[in-house]
Amino acid sequence: MEEMVARTQDEVCALIEDLDGGHRFREDLWSRSEGGGGRTRVLENGRRFEKAGVNVSTVSGPMPEAIARAARGRGIALPEGEHHFWATGVSLVLHPSNPLAPTVHANYRYFEMESNTGDRLAWWFGGGTDLTPNYLFAEDARHFHGVLKERCDRHDRSFYPRFKKDCDDYFRIPHRGEARGLGGIFFDNLNDRDPELLFAFSADCAAGIVPAIEPIYRARLDLPFAERHRRWQQLRRGRYVEFNLVYDRGTTFGLRTGGRTESILMSLPLTARWEYDHEPEAGSPEAELLEILRHPRDWA
Amino acid sequence: MEEMVARTQDEVCALIEDLDGGHRFREDLWSRSEGGGGRTRVLENGRRFEKAGVNVSTVSGPMPEAIARAARGRGIALPEGEHHFWATGVSLVLHPSNPLAPTVHANYRYFEMESNTGDRLAWWFGGGTDLTPNYLFAEDARHFHGVLKERCDRHDRSFYPRFKKDCDDYFRIPHRGEARGLGGIFFDNLNDRDPELLFAFSADCAAGIVPAIEPIYRARLDLPFAERHRRWQQLRRGRYVEFNLVYDRGTTFGLRTGGRTESILMSLPLTARWEYDHEPEAGSPEAELLEILRHPRDWA
Repeated sequence: MEEMVARTQDEVCALIEDLDGGHRFREDLWSRSEGGGGRTRVLENGRRFEKAGVNVSTVSGPMPEAIARAARGRGIALPEGEHHFWATGVSLVLHPSNPLAPTVHANYRYFEMESNTGDRLAWWFGGGTDLTPNYLFAEDARHFHGVLKERCDRHDRSFYPRFKKDCDDYFRIPHRGEARGLGGIFFDNLNDRDPELLFAFSADCAAGIVPAIEPIYRARLDLPFAERHRRWQQLRRGRYVEFNLVYDRGTTFGLRTGGRTESILMSLPLTARWEYDHEPEAGSPEAELLEILRHPRDWA
Repeated sequence: MEEMVARTQDEVCALIEDLDGGHRFREDLWSRSEGGGGRTRVLENGRRFEKAGVNVSTVSGPMPEAIARAARGRGIALPEGEHHFWATGVSLVLHPSNPLAPTVHANYRYFEMESNTGDRLAWWFGGGTDLTPNYLFAEDARHFHGVLKERCDRHDRSFYPRFKKDCDDYFRIPHRGEARGLGGIFFDNLNDRDPELLFAFSADCAAGIVPAIEPIYRARLDLPFAERHRRWQQLRRGRYVEFNLVYDRGTTFGLRTGGRTESILMSLPLTARWEYDHEPEAGSPEAELLEILRHPRDWA
């Protein structure tokens, strides 16, 4: 899993540097006093990417009580007492400069917990890949979901419909009555079969990030755009910030339990905008996107 | 209280329109199906104010269980059962365009709750006024806190030190190890004496908003500034967004319980910025502000 996570980071960073055609990722190694650490890579103010962050981390140590409580709150049976955990994952958010190119997020992770006597008490896989455009290109949504579906179908035909729905449910902004984007797949607490099978599934999904996004970025990053598109992009980035800071479990939980703030908030866009009561003109491309965010569809 | 709240809205809006010297507030009246409503006023893209929102509301109806739970969680003894509540307040956030002029927030409110048989079960006052500059002008901080202290001292000499500390404690961004700004006063659940006395105190504080901010804005709104100041302002606005969306009780609670989203999020700046791991140059005015945010001081 650690190797897979590192490979995913390398593959995605290589793609983004190639697409950007100008800037390189800055790399920060960090460690955690209780055990483990990570490698954060950020490319900011690039030629074609306003901000791209690709993090990996492997952390371990005594299980923080807050994490145990949160796990129990999500229905995971954890015995009381002092335990140890081990977790590894890759997390990335790509914010291109061009308003016609989408923001992409992906995250693949594995968690396990053992007792002081070395018994494995709990383990699970989590992850997902999702697309957040500012303007709808239906062929991009179909391609993106198609790659994810094909990856899921290799393992279990029930996965894509189930994780597509979980993604729509998770990335909702209830106070806006909108989805964050056009979805993708999302899974969490996945431990209902042999871990080797779930590892293979996670690895296949992670290896699907590049084929899912590369053709979309090649088609959109250099499209001509106007000030109107830029303003709408900034407003949609405001919504991205709202979701991440108010609802995203990884973000809110990480910030409240002493995670590395700069790595967690690398997901935020470089810039964002909030206008009071903005509503796009009826029939405009902006209104078209909003309509879909309010009523998520099937794409694959 | 309702009259005081409406008067405060009028006074502050008149000041801001005068200072802006160009734009007027847009007014939206809204109502709530369960009872009551509000009057939201927003001035956006003004000559001197990027975004200024001044809301009043008076709401009532069956007590939402989420509010009762939150009140109990804050140590307020509320009996079980179905109750009614009545609440009124004014809330304002002023974001000037000039990076050398501070953001100002204030909020004054009263809440009460009665049983189905008409007994008053609980009541309290809450409020505060606080200052969030991007650059330190020590004389502004002293003036602002001085006005608040003088207003507090008219009622109880213990109020200013107590509510100044409560303000520093409340407006903290723990994941940054920073205060949101230079503080002011903050009080909540205040019901330890005759409500008429606490009303008079709240009214005096609310009437102190204009004298606390007017000389600061007159001195700062037209100062010349450079791109460097603007960038730092945008980064500080990112922190303002982080506090409001992650920690502010009114915001997070309002969003999760079906409050009017546009009125709640009117507090967010027009634009904000997040750069990975930004740290101002040692000895710079930006670093000077950060040092104070990390170690709040006394100003009055």
